[in-house]
Amino acid sequence: MYNFIFQNPVKVIFGKGTIAQITPNIPAQSKILMTYGGGSIMKNGVYDQVKAALKGYDVTEFGGIEPNPRYETCMKAVEICREKKIDFLLAVGGGSVLDGTKFIAAAFYHTEGDPWEILTQGKPVSKALPIGAVMTLPATGSEMNGNAVISRNSTQEKLAFYSPAVYPQFCVLDPETTFTLPDRQTRNGIVDSFIHVCEQYMTFPVNAPLQDRQSEGIFHTLIEEGPKVLKNPTDYEARANIMWAATNALNHYIACGVPQDWATHGIGHELTALHGMDHAQTLACVVLGLFKHQKKSKLAKLAQYGRRIWGLSGDNDDAIADQAICKTEEFFRSLGMKTHLNEYGVGDENFEEIGSRFERRGIKIGEHANLGKKEVIEILRLCL
Amino acid sequence: MYNFIFQNPVKVIFGKGTIAQITPNIPAQSKILMTYGGGSIMKNGVYDQVKAALKGYDVTEFGGIEPNPRYETCMKAVEICREKKIDFLLAVGGGSVLDGTKFIAAAFYHTEGDPWEILTQGKPVSKALPIGAVMTLPATGSEMNGNAVISRNSTQEKLAFYSPAVYPQFCVLDPETTFTLPDRQTRNGIVDSFIHVCEQYMTFPVNAPLQDRQSEGIFHTLIEEGPKVLKNPTDYEARANIMWAATNALNHYIACGVPQDWATHGIGHELTALHGMDHAQTLACVVLGLFKHQKKSKLAKLAQYGRRIWGLSGDNDDAIADQAICKTEEFFRSLGMKTHLNEYGVGDENFEEIGSRFERRGIKIGEHANLGKKEVIEILRLCL
Repeated sequence: MYNFIFQNPVKVIFGKGTIAQITPNIPAQSKILMTYGGGSIMKNGVYDQVKAALKGYDVTEFGGIEPNPRYETCMKAVEICREKKIDFLLAVGGGSVLDGTKFIAAAFYHTEGDPWEILTQGKPVSKALPIGAVMTLPATGSEMNGNAVISRNSTQEKLAFYSPAVYPQFCVLDPETTFTLPDRQTRNGIVDSFIHVCEQYMTFPVNAPLQDRQSEGIFHTLIEEGPKVLKNPTDYEARANIMWAATNALNHYIACGVPQDWATHGIGHELTALHGMDHAQTLACVVLGLFKHQKKSKLAKLAQYGRRIWGLSGDNDDAIADQAICKTEEFFRSLGMKTHLNEYGVGDENFEEIGSRFERRGIKIGEHANLGKKEVIEILRLCL
Repeated sequence: MYNFIFQNPVKVIFGKGTIAQITPNIPAQSKILMTYGGGSIMKNGVYDQVKAALKGYDVTEFGGIEPNPRYETCMKAVEICREKKIDFLLAVGGGSVLDGTKFIAAAFYHTEGDPWEILTQGKPVSKALPIGAVMTLPATGSEMNGNAVISRNSTQEKLAFYSPAVYPQFCVLDPETTFTLPDRQTRNGIVDSFIHVCEQYMTFPVNAPLQDRQSEGIFHTLIEEGPKVLKNPTDYEARANIMWAATNALNHYIACGVPQDWATHGIGHELTALHGMDHAQTLACVVLGLFKHQKKSKLAKLAQYGRRIWGLSGDNDDAIADQAICKTEEFFRSLGMKTHLNEYGVGDENFEEIGSRFERRGIKIGEHANLGKKEVIEILRLCL
């Protein structure tokens, strides 16, 4: 196992009827900006529950944070925070709302230069407004990490940043809030979580048996519980298991002491930026192409995954790996998720541009940092 | 799954050569009390590494915190903290040193009444001195929780307390510091960790498949890696895996949303208090008696454990449970751990007193809170 540092201060408040518990976790006299998305929280009762809990606080609302939250939108919220002297941000919604809120929190204090530099130049975020979260969509793990991904309209870019300053102080996870999610979002969330685990597991062995099994536990849970929530959206127990699995998939716990990949996300973000595909839709396509392309370098872990997760048997690691990739695709398709770019009408028209973007940024991706323009294009061809 | 709240702010610094990293984590100008135990850190180089890292700080040393740390000893340290205006505690050693240090940290601010009340009356600990830890013995999980167990000589009692105020701010876990542990302590640590998982897993199913698999991952790791460290004490990888497993076994993560038992610890503490047995020695005996006594109520989980951990097969849960208990005993004995009280020269002379202690405290133990004096004595008889 590698050396590592782990710290995750987020207070998780999990379960039925817990939205009311936000109140003791926000300082009295706070001037709160309550952020949300397209308004689904108005229909499922979450807005009313949150407003009831916030009675007595000075609350300003900021709705309309879009999926793949935009720099332009977030900067409007930053202006409001400055005008109204906001000192606490409460994100109510899914990962996009929370990611946008994290950027708002960081940009608020980034007064020298354009806050976009946080994403393009990795300018450090040493201070941010405090954040609380009521999560209504299990998918990104944003509720228990310090990561955010922001898109910019004018440049068609989608970029990530991390800072310990933007961990939510608390997150409320009430599985009942997910009962009314459209199938598409439920499915996206399951696949997104699944691939978060892939990014931290499907690399090469470093003798970390506990972390391997923690990751495998999340795989098993998503595979067993995923179909249940799609079949019966109000199955509380299954919704709860999916919700906790999604948080565990990206709270950095399974990453302790092991190599990480993140090539699937790197490539997937470009497909979203250029083609508007849903985040999880890009991941489902790209991860299969990546596994095929990198089968040799990921062989030991692909074989372990095939045996432990899919119950495959036999001595031939190569054959097990091939079958494991097929099983993964079958699982995605069983959830109703497409697995080829051409099913979304996406061809190779931007592959050259995508490859070139990594080249221009001067980075190679993957757990060996050896995937450049050429390999990215090869991987994308395997995703068609 | 049950509703739950989870928060664990500890910064874990894990790996080879990490002791030097304590420095940036302790505020400059701190007046540090460095606590330790019987002096093994003088022999294995840990003392020298810590002192080198603390160069420039005002450090007072307090050695001699014993296994099952005593109230009487800790109170001497509290006096020193007050005299010397100590404002940071650095525990260097195993779980006993850290538990003692947590009590010192809490007792420092408990100026009205006797700090022993924290343990006997559950007096809340709202404030404590900040704590850092360099752990040299993987066992108790104390490095990543807010728990401590303290013994009092004069009353032959051993009692626990919990407070969010006594989570270490950071802990350094360097597996190399465990190379020189005596076999007895290595073995005790493996068994102690194993039974921490039992206390949070071997109860009844509440449809929490991820938590189950996280627990099972720790069982597997201890079973696979435990024999390796006893055979080859300087096997870095195995030592690292045992160390991380021990932390995971009691950082409250696997307890999220599931019932907990802790009867084995409750009874075991009395055996240590009255007979001076090592903590883990008591646990290995008691857990087997408890499993036999509570087989019916723990049947579903015992059977799942038997199948998933020991690879047992068959449809008869009752038979699987019996075999799983045997396998557990075989595992302990394979590590060189005795599993019957009479092997330690302990008979039934204090069973009545132990049962009565629970009665006098007015508590029933176990995940159903239904084990009183009668049941405790029955369980103890099964441990002879």
